[in-house]
Amino acid sequence: MFEIINPEILGYVAATLTTASFLPQAILTIRTRDTDGLSLSMYSTFTLGVFCWLFYGIFLSNNVIIFANAITLFLATLILSFKIYNSFFKRKK
Amino acid sequence: MFEIINPEILGYVAATLTTASFLPQAILTIRTRDTDGLSLSMYSTFTLGVFCWLFYGIFLSNNVIIFANAITLFLATLILSFKIYNSFFKRKK
Repeated sequence: MFEIINPEILGYVAATLTTASFLPQAILTIRTRDTDGLSLSMYSTFTLGVFCWLFYGIFLSNNVIIFANAITLFLATLILSFKIYNSFFKRKK
Repeated sequence: MFEIINPEILGYVAATLTTASFLPQAILTIRTRDTDGLSLSMYSTFTLGVFCWLFYGIFLSNNVIIFANAITLFLATLILSFKIYNSFFKRKK
């Protein structure tokens, strides 16, 4: 069975699925700017982790890892920026 | 700068960070069995994606990808099982 599967295609399927599962949350947060339900420490850890994955992909010259983590890093950084802004710079209602 | 970084260590740092950011949610859900705040479609997509990542890692014989996704797949499958049980088999209060 293994020889009929193209690893690169499997990788892109994996990347598309995990990125797609993250998209609805990302879009909701970006649209509403509501980050009350998100944990700052968890999101910081996640964003830093995705940043490391991106560099790991660049080191390995692995396009699948670069592709998946570049998109996720962009979205995660945007959400983390909202979270930091809401937590430290915005007055509570 | 690049030559002083060991790619495998960077990969394990990345894997540890993204897995660690997933852990508090996983532990909370496993302890409380409360899956009301989780989306079935998003979680199914995520779990399937992690499953594909694991096979991608096996194809590439990449221990970092295998390690990260094996742990995440175990936790995600457990949570998805609770979600499916709560959604289809448990009477609503």
